[in-house]
Amino acid sequence: MLKSPIQPHPLPRSPSVAIVGATGAVGTEMIACLERRNFPLSRLKLLASPRSAGRSSKFNGQNVHIDALDAFSLRDVDIALFSAGGAISIEFAKTAPRHAVVIDNSSAFRMEQHVPLIVPEVNIDQLARHSGIIANPSCVAIIAALPLWPLHCANPIQRVVATTYQAASGGGAALMEELRASTQAFLANQKFTPRVAPHDYAFNVFSHNTRVDPESGNNEEEIKVARELPKIMNAPNLRVGITCVRVPVLRAHTIAMTVEFEHPLTQLAQNRDLDHAESIV
Amino acid sequence: MLKSPIQPHPLPRSPSVAIVGATGAVGTEMIACLERRNFPLSRLKLLASPRSAGRSSKFNGQNVHIDALDAFSLRDVDIALFSAGGAISIEFAKTAPRHAVVIDNSSAFRMEQHVPLIVPEVNIDQLARHSGIIANPSCVAIIAALPLWPLHCANPIQRVVATTYQAASGGGAALMEELRASTQAFLANQKFTPRVAPHDYAFNVFSHNTRVDPESGNNEEEIKVARELPKIMNAPNLRVGITCVRVPVLRAHTIAMTVEFEHPLTQLAQNRDLDHAESIV
Repeated sequence: MLKSPIQPHPLPRSPSVAIVGATGAVGTEMIACLERRNFPLSRLKLLASPRSAGRSSKFNGQNVHIDALDAFSLRDVDIALFSAGGAISIEFAKTAPRHAVVIDNSSAFRMEQHVPLIVPEVNIDQLARHSGIIANPSCVAIIAALPLWPLHCANPIQRVVATTYQAASGGGAALMEELRASTQAFLANQKFTPRVAPHDYAFNVFSHNTRVDPESGNNEEEIKVARELPKIMNAPNLRVGITCVRVPVLRAHTIAMTVEFEHPLTQLAQNRDLDHAESIV
Repeated sequence: MLKSPIQPHPLPRSPSVAIVGATGAVGTEMIACLERRNFPLSRLKLLASPRSAGRSSKFNGQNVHIDALDAFSLRDVDIALFSAGGAISIEFAKTAPRHAVVIDNSSAFRMEQHVPLIVPEVNIDQLARHSGIIANPSCVAIIAALPLWPLHCANPIQRVVATTYQAASGGGAALMEELRASTQAFLANQKFTPRVAPHDYAFNVFSHNTRVDPESGNNEEEIKVARELPKIMNAPNLRVGITCVRVPVLRAHTIAMTVEFEHPLTQLAQNRDLDHAESIV
């Protein structure tokens, strides 16, 4: 499925960019981000499922038509940003031209050997090693890696115990809408039947809405983060224990981490009441 | 301030009971709990601040007048349940008669040597050692102690790393009302200025609303739990690292704990993906 590692062709100065999953919560942010950064693109192609195709989105003041993704959608594209779930990434990433770069937001390729898993502030040096696909880590792995990396450079980290407070946004626009609607119903003393979340979401917390592995007791989100962090930080022996929980927050994840270092901390840190470095990001 | 340790007098079979802080979130639950358990009391005395006095509460179908607490309120009382904050406990616990038992929900006396700090399922055997005051631990210490205790009995616990998801109820009726009102305002796109919480509470999480110790970086709730757990579990060397966070939930706290034991865990547990016991209570 993956192309063999090759030295990538240089991209054109004004590449043609496609967003796959353009109507989702992440796709919408991608469009806004390209506009805000004034990204030098020659053309923006917006792609979505046949259900969402036909609509349009604003980009730099212009209406851009949203097309249905098919096997030919990417043939004139230089950069394809995927955020439509792992199944779509697996099916369509290979339809991008050989010279193109797929930047994939799903978990489909993250742990593949020839796919760099990039947090720019941490391992941008790995970017050039790609063979056509660059993976974006899970959101929690990113916010964990940001403060861990400079600490790890100063004093190697051996173990991380983390707990998350994850917002509805990670579950997409539909989960955000369910949080709003169910909370509104609760406050109006009306019954609400969850459609997206596995539990009532109004004023409630629950284990991350991914499958729980019966063997380990971990949900898929926890397993992903525990695998991705060592790859991002190039620290294969890093031990990660993590508990991922959804909280009734619309946007922005929070993480609490306890970190064990190879060497003793400085006197300042050792004087603290509790004997570990602790932070809420 | 504390009486010297004495063998307590036996209480009458139908004691006279007072609730100090009868109009608060906890006081209201205490009244409901006494009624639900059909507690054999001869008289229920409801006490509150002068501001709340004059009202009445239902108990077993009768209206019970709520009196203002003063230095003489407790003189005919056998059991006084205090939940009106530490300052009230310190000022008025000593006004209870010598034979009486004060059960204090505040943190005022919890760490005093002659005050048992009781979680009935864990250390009920300590109850008889009281000298007039029995303390109720902080809510988080209770929910942490419940699953930790049977594990500790099977395999001594050396260290606990915990993170909380604490509901508004722990901040009293006023904080619960602020969560409702601020959420309602947010959904109606109206401005809301927090009066009780230190931050906007609607769809938000924040460090527990107690003072943060500048030296350790821990808030007071974290310091309390880290001190109380070793006392409750009679494990003075137990290391506790805890992060206490408010989440926008009306009632019921949640805690995620990672536990290190003295001896290896059984084969079943060792086979798990992550090498620690992890639970959400």
